[in-house]
Amino acid sequence: MANFGGHAIPGSFFFLYGVWLTVKHILHHYWRMHQPKHRQGMAPFLKKMHYFEGGLQIFAASVGILVEQFVPDGPHAHLISGREWVKLMNWQHSTMYLFFGIAGVTLVASTASKLVPVGVDRLILSMALFVEGFLFYYHVSMRPHLDAHIHTLLLVAVFGGAASTMLEVFKRHNIILELLGAGFFILQGTWFYQIGFVLYPLSGPQWELEQHDNIMFVTMCFCWHLAVAVLLVTSTSFAVWFMLRRLSSNGRDIEIGMRNTSSASNSQKFLLEESEEE
Amino acid sequence: MANFGGHAIPGSFFFLYGVWLTVKHILHHYWRMHQPKHRQGMAPFLKKMHYFEGGLQIFAASVGILVEQFVPDGPHAHLISGREWVKLMNWQHSTMYLFFGIAGVTLVASTASKLVPVGVDRLILSMALFVEGFLFYYHVSMRPHLDAHIHTLLLVAVFGGAASTMLEVFKRHNIILELLGAGFFILQGTWFYQIGFVLYPLSGPQWELEQHDNIMFVTMCFCWHLAVAVLLVTSTSFAVWFMLRRLSSNGRDIEIGMRNTSSASNSQKFLLEESEEE
Amino acid sequence: MANFGGHAIPGSFFFLYGVWLTVKHILHHYWRMHQPKHRQGMAPFLKKMHYFEGGLQIFAASVGILVEQFVPDGPHAHLISGREWVKLMNWQHSTMYLFFGIAGVTLVASTASKLVPVGVDRLILSMALFVEGFLFYYHVSMRPHLDAHIHTLLLVAVFGGAASTMLEVFKRHNIILELLGAGFFILQGTWFYQIGFVLYPLSGPQWELEQHDNIMFVTMCFCWHLAVAVLLVTSTSFAVWFMLRRLSSNGRDIEIGMRNTSSASNSQKFLLEESEEE
Amino acid sequence: MANFGGHAIPGSFFFLYGVWLTVKHILHHYWRMHQPKHRQGMAPFLKKMHYFEGGLQIFAASVGILVEQFVPDGPHAHLISGREWVKLMNWQHSTMYLFFGIAGVTLVASTASKLVPVGVDRLILSMALFVEGFLFYYHVSMRPHLDAHIHTLLLVAVFGGAASTMLEVFKRHNIILELLGAGFFILQGTWFYQIGFVLYPLSGPQWELEQHDNIMFVTMCFCWHLAVAVLLVTSTSFAVWFMLRRLSSNGRDIEIGMRNTSSASNSQKFLLEESEEE
Repeated sequence: MANFGGHAIPGSFFFLYGVWLTVKHILHHYWRMHQPKHRQGMAPFLKKMHYFEGGLQIFAASVGILVEQFVPDGPHAHLISGREWVKLMNWQHSTMYLFFGIAGVTLVASTASKLVPVGVDRLILSMALFVEGFLFYYHVSMRPHLDAHIHTLLLVAVFGGAASTMLEVFKRHNIILELLGAGFFILQGTWFYQIGFVLYPLSGPQWELEQHDNIMFVTMCFCWHLAVAVLLVTSTSFAVWFMLRRLSSNGRDIEIGMRNTSSASNSQKFLLEESEEE
Repeated sequence: MANFGGHAIPGSFFFLYGVWLTVKHILHHYWRMHQPKHRQGMAPFLKKMHYFEGGLQIFAASVGILVEQFVPDGPHAHLISGREWVKLMNWQHSTMYLFFGIAGVTLVASTASKLVPVGVDRLILSMALFVEGFLFYYHVSMRPHLDAHIHTLLLVAVFGGAASTMLEVFKRHNIILELLGAGFFILQGTWFYQIGFVLYPLSGPQWELEQHDNIMFVTMCFCWHLAVAVLLVTSTSFAVWFMLRRLSSNGRDIEIGMRNTSSASNSQKFLLEESEEE
Repeated sequence: MANFGGHAIPGSFFFLYGVWLTVKHILHHYWRMHQPKHRQGMAPFLKKMHYFEGGLQIFAASVGILVEQFVPDGPHAHLISGREWVKLMNWQHSTMYLFFGIAGVTLVASTASKLVPVGVDRLILSMALFVEGFLFYYHVSMRPHLDAHIHTLLLVAVFGGAASTMLEVFKRHNIILELLGAGFFILQGTWFYQIGFVLYPLSGPQWELEQHDNIMFVTMCFCWHLAVAVLLVTSTSFAVWFMLRRLSSNGRDIEIGMRNTSSASNSQKFLLEESEEE
Repeated sequence: MANFGGHAIPGSFFFLYGVWLTVKHILHHYWRMHQPKHRQGMAPFLKKMHYFEGGLQIFAASVGILVEQFVPDGPHAHLISGREWVKLMNWQHSTMYLFFGIAGVTLVASTASKLVPVGVDRLILSMALFVEGFLFYYHVSMRPHLDAHIHTLLLVAVFGGAASTMLEVFKRHNIILELLGAGFFILQGTWFYQIGFVLYPLSGPQWELEQHDNIMFVTMCFCWHLAVAVLLVTSTSFAVWFMLRRLSSNGRDIEIGMRNTSSASNSQKFLLEESEEE
């Protein structure tokens, strides 16, 4: 989908997914801090969030695959026509969506059944990111310089996310790692938008694809997106923490599945203890 | 062995080895969950499986080396003839088999004797995969584009397996890591078949080795193989678990060396506990 | 800032920061050894050092950004002029400073509030180093051979520091890792000076930028800087330890926030115990 | 030193050092298994071995530097002559020796004083290997194909050893890691000999440096060296274990600093326990 919309749609999804992950992980972190040490297990609200997240991933991936296949100029589920491959670009995008769909199935399964080893959902999500980066990697060769460069920078966000999510398989419940993974999704999301703006400007003239200064600017711009991602993760985390604190001081803990006994004052105490122990 | 059979034979071996590893690791995982905490040690059935696996590796590697050396157009154990190297391709394949043979010897030795440090078998298996990838890496340069590309993708499976198996040296009994390693073997196996189909088609015309669309398709096809490998590991694991559950509910635990006291109901309970602890 | 001063100023900052980190980590290490096991927490003097360090980082980064923007031939906060980018080099340097500024803010925040997860300051510092290396990486292509090479060697120090600092997120209070990170800063600092001397010699003739022998010498010279960095970290550590030992044997522990009961003799004892436990 | 001897001398050193490390680590491993859990600390014989090893490293590095500097056609401690660099190859070799000398000093210091953090000796040894590989890496470009290739393969052994030794900083007393590091030294040693034989054959004609078959053979030959290194580490380990077992059954434990109470029968028992725990 070589137009602005074709970059804005996945960009929005990745961006919102990053924000969602930030909210989820901060809620979970806060909940863990309120739990007595011996009561491990999954928070009730987390279970619902996982079902929602997994379900949405399955739904979005299915829609994505169907759209890629059955848009008017799509392959309509034909792979070969005569001796030629049909619309391989659409097939590649379908493949990427497929893996995010599998990640959704895994998340639902691992939430529903204790048989699925803990961490498999992270492994498959990491695999989905790897597949995305892998296909993009061979995708971008033989393009004009700026086009190739701006997609290569995307790979930094994609493979960074894949590596960070893979680490979560082995280091469970590390809030820094969880927020890092979320940040990579946000970065990927905003960068998709940037790619759209550069390659298919909504207004104004086209960018000169071989000019060195454009390359230099785009490289620097990626770092600005990184700074924005850090800022967004931080402010989202703070907003969630602030709302939880207000809610819990009003005794409305039940809504998000927390225990009644926790209050603002001892929640603060737990926060202190947690930080020191880690 | 530049023909279809020369790719199908190693492909079948790697595929079956991956399935075997999946079954073995799930059996072991299930058995660990039934053991009381203080009784660590090796499951009796695992010992037999290790002997069988190691023995087969030694046998298959020996046969492989002999075949590569003594096929009619092989080197017949001659390395130099006059001032020329003799059939280096066959020598390279023999070298690969040699390392899988050493891995077999190590597995038998580490099962038989407590003197061999735990984990050495994983290290040597990782080394065998590394050597395979290492030789392939220098093997594929200077081939036509598609030929080189399809072998490069094989390296992803080979080096992925080497890295994952190496990690098992340090992270023992991590079922995710064990299944990941098994999945890489399955992926390698099916990809060997794919290489055979592409380079030596059984029917139909030859593939155009320099056409860009073929490269794009093959890259995407590798991701499909990955999805199939994930599916196969999952379904094999489920099948093994399902059979074990039926067996144990019939009180026939002894056959696979489990303790009599375990029943379907508390096996389920152990499964739950295990998952939460990890 | 393509002159000697433009390399000497950042060089001095990185060098002094490396020495500062060495002193801080050794003080902290010494303090940890004197603490009874159950009293974990942050040393009072460390808190003050963190505020100072973070404040200085914020201040220096702000000054750096302002200087880069408002020097006479700077961009004066203009990014685009007509259809051209304005002074992208200055903008890139400003971006680098920005991230070190963010690292300073994080350090202050994580010292002031227990809400910030432990280790986030290390993550952001690692990110600042990554951004520095990332921008340099695309910066140095298309330069003369020696110029590109000498900047590539800088990347070894920068990315080495980024990796080592990233590891500190997961391995807390490992004195070897902490000193390794400090050493990379010292190495980066002295190497900036070396770049200045080679590309903008204060006296004598210009270096021949394409001569192979110069490349060879510069490569070797980098190793000498590494040896010097090792020596400096070692001697600084020893000096700090020696001064602390003299102070504590005079009973003036309070000055650096230590407990009165520690004396030279049992401090030595603690040192022994610590080393064996690690 | 571009002749056979110039490769045989470092080759012999690395080979013998690898064997020495194997013996040392197996002795230490055996000793650890005999120690009661609560008595941690350093084995008396290990202390002596460390002093010997460190002393020899310092001595050999000093001799190496002096020889490189003061051979008749050496630089005689002159770095610059007029406007030309003097004998940079000799200076590079001196730099390599310098780092192994520093590693020796660190080993002695960390054995003698408890102030030196445990593991620093491994870090510096890893750094010495890194410097060796780093200098070789820039050394080998612009050589004939076979010459460059055979040195590139050396880098696999050098950087493999650097990585494995670096891991030992964080994973102490892991016998597999320790033997892996020793194996990389043995591999490096035998491969230095191989380089000597290929580039400066003692008899027979010169090797054709651009012939593809020679590249293929050399790649495969490296794997054979790897197999030999595995075999040597294994047989050395077994020989040491066998001799220790005979010694301890004769009650002559004191000679190697073991405790009198250990006998062949319970040493075996400890071996079993250790393996299971790991």
